Amino acid sequence: MKVTLDHVGIAVQDLEAALRFFRDALGLEVAAPESVATQRVRVTEAAAGGPTLEFLEATDPTSPVGRFLDRRGPGLHHITLAVDDLTGTLEQLRARGVTLIDQQPRVGVEGSRIAFVHPASAHGVLVELKQADPAT
Amino acid sequence: MKVTLDHVGIAVQDLEAALRFFRDALGLEVAAPESVATQRVRVTEAAAGGPTLEFLEATDPTSPVGRFLDRRGPGLHHITLAVDDLTGTLEQLRARGVTLIDQQPRVGVEGSRIAFVHPASAHGVLVELKQADPAT
Repeated sequence: MKVTLDHVGIAVQDLEAALRFFRDALGLEVAAPESVATQRVRVTEAAAGGPTLEFLEATDPTSPVGRFLDRRGPGLHHITLAVDDLTGTLEQLRARGVTLIDQQPRVGVEGSRIAFVHPASAHGVLVELKQADPAT
Repeated sequence: MKVTLDHVGIAVQDLEAALRFFRDALGLEVAAPESVATQRVRVTEAAAGGPTLEFLEATDPTSPVGRFLDRRGPGLHHITLAVDDLTGTLEQLRARGVTLIDQQPRVGVEGSRIAFVHPASAHGVLVELKQADPAT
């Protein structure tokens, strides 16, 4: 089973201000921001070799990212690991007593399937697991 | 200028307990732990595609990682971005008013040169910049 880092999610108060550092000062190549209505965030992805950095700005203070910002301030929010077989991985984690936020895969962006592991079972790290669309 | 993600640093209270999740349950391939005396940490690296996940356990509660654990608990600690020209990058950041922890590159592991950007200038993210040993 191969596990690879897909992206690192970074919660920011102000996407444009964050890009002045990460894009303009540091030189990362950044895509145009997109709104993700279901998560109530504006997101922009920066290329960083294989994986990407995903900058997340809450569009609603009661959204998951909004509550994270309120509680912890801006900073590293989650890591997303790509797995070959998400359903099998979730079964394997449950068998070891790992607490999952999502018991079953749900639909992510671009046809991917995703599920979150609870940070209490992942040593404080919010871990998103992702399986690419089998058709791609 | 190319900027790529080299690794993600994760602070943990107990390296062996963390490996039971990340290695045994999730299936990451993990190297043997090493002690880094200057940083007062035990470290183990997990392969995750191009970049690695670096698990950090403090060997002294007053070390930087020990203080982070005390203040924030375990979790995502830093990201390390590889750059081609660290001295040039630091000059460029200073010119834009970015606060640096290290004004000049210092020696990292395996002959690399590293410098940290202050999280206050990086939207709450502790950013380590790294230039590989020119001889490698």
